[in-house]
Amino acid sequence: MRKKAVVLLSGGIDSATTLYLAKSKKFSPVALIFDYGQRHGKEVGFAKRIAKRAGCPYKVIRLPFSWKGSSLLDRSKRIPSGVAPGRKTGIPSTYVPARNLIFLSIATSFAESIKAGALFIGAHTQDYSGYPDCRKRFFDLFKKVITSGTKDGKHIRICAPLVNKNKKEIIKLGRRLKVPFNLTWSCYKGGRVPCGTCDSCCFRARAFKELGISDE
Amino acid sequence: MRKKAVVLLSGGIDSATTLYLAKSKKFSPVALIFDYGQRHGKEVGFAKRIAKRAGCPYKVIRLPFSWKGSSLLDRSKRIPSGVAPGRKTGIPSTYVPARNLIFLSIATSFAESIKAGALFIGAHTQDYSGYPDCRKRFFDLFKKVITSGTKDGKHIRICAPLVNKNKKEIIKLGRRLKVPFNLTWSCYKGGRVPCGTCDSCCFRARAFKELGISDE
Repeated sequence: MRKKAVVLLSGGIDSATTLYLAKSKKFSPVALIFDYGQRHGKEVGFAKRIAKRAGCPYKVIRLPFSWKGSSLLDRSKRIPSGVAPGRKTGIPSTYVPARNLIFLSIATSFAESIKAGALFIGAHTQDYSGYPDCRKRFFDLFKKVITSGTKDGKHIRICAPLVNKNKKEIIKLGRRLKVPFNLTWSCYKGGRVPCGTCDSCCFRARAFKELGISDE
Repeated sequence: MRKKAVVLLSGGIDSATTLYLAKSKKFSPVALIFDYGQRHGKEVGFAKRIAKRAGCPYKVIRLPFSWKGSSLLDRSKRIPSGVAPGRKTGIPSTYVPARNLIFLSIATSFAESIKAGALFIGAHTQDYSGYPDCRKRFFDLFKKVITSGTKDGKHIRICAPLVNKNKKEIIKLGRRLKVPFNLTWSCYKGGRVPCGTCDSCCFRARAFKELGISDE
């Protein structure tokens, strides 16, 4: 079985836990870090530090996304805040058009070129349930696409091990795997410290609180 | 019906014909031109000229593909030549891992952001039959992926109008649509004039010859 794995690493808790999970399954991971015109480059620095701590080689891919349409890319749009406990359903404004599809496509190309046997993504549906590209059905269809449309895709497993977990379960798993949470960054904004009010900060804070552990 | 369309434009005969076909179907096309580390940047310049001639706005997307694996990207590998009439079957060395998947994914993101109703790609299977990402089955599956995994994908048709045509048929269609073939570039190499010996040159030359028309 091929032991190399490509892991999408964003600098947050989910992808860091996924990286450590891939390691625990005896894969030799290579991290792909995307610098895609986020409002702030902070995530990229955190992702690099996590990869280094994990002893994992990494590659930063710059994608010049110059089109608008997401509050994560467009500074003129407001990041939604304070809505974690009861946010309306639907796709949030932080959705970036086809982001995971693009990331997975590039990761597939890279996986083909290094003969990796698996591609790990830390997506999950429990919290950010509005993102259509975080669902199991999407990953299953993506696997079919690469099996049909690439030279090597039939040998590449798409692994989304967190897809049915919620944030609490992910943090519990991450603690067991000794993920360095202090090196992760969740906030959608790029301040010196997390804002504490965006969706992503709220989900994180609530999960740590419910687990009764401190986030530091 | 949405009238905007995104057209992948490479600078060759197939994508130029596809662009003119989209126009003839009363779409308002926007061309996406990929600069992805090809051995030579010649294609990109040709694609821009074709878009201008067609009166079509365009966007150049730079993709820093720094991994190897294809003779189209890697100068240390030999471009296959002189094999057009009887090339062995299989995937040629000019295959770029997951190229069309990446192009279509980025084009989908762009199509979402401009609310386009169609995405045109000039792929066909008749000549370069070894490329897995030029087949109808791949495009059908890709449509399923974007329907499932993007906000807007259900409104975006994937149009591969040349998929069942061979080079002769494409050239005949292009002539009818008044495609400026003199502005197209097919050669895999980047010399001052086409090499005349690579697969792509051979297919082109043979098709024009069989049609009994001159390629100028």
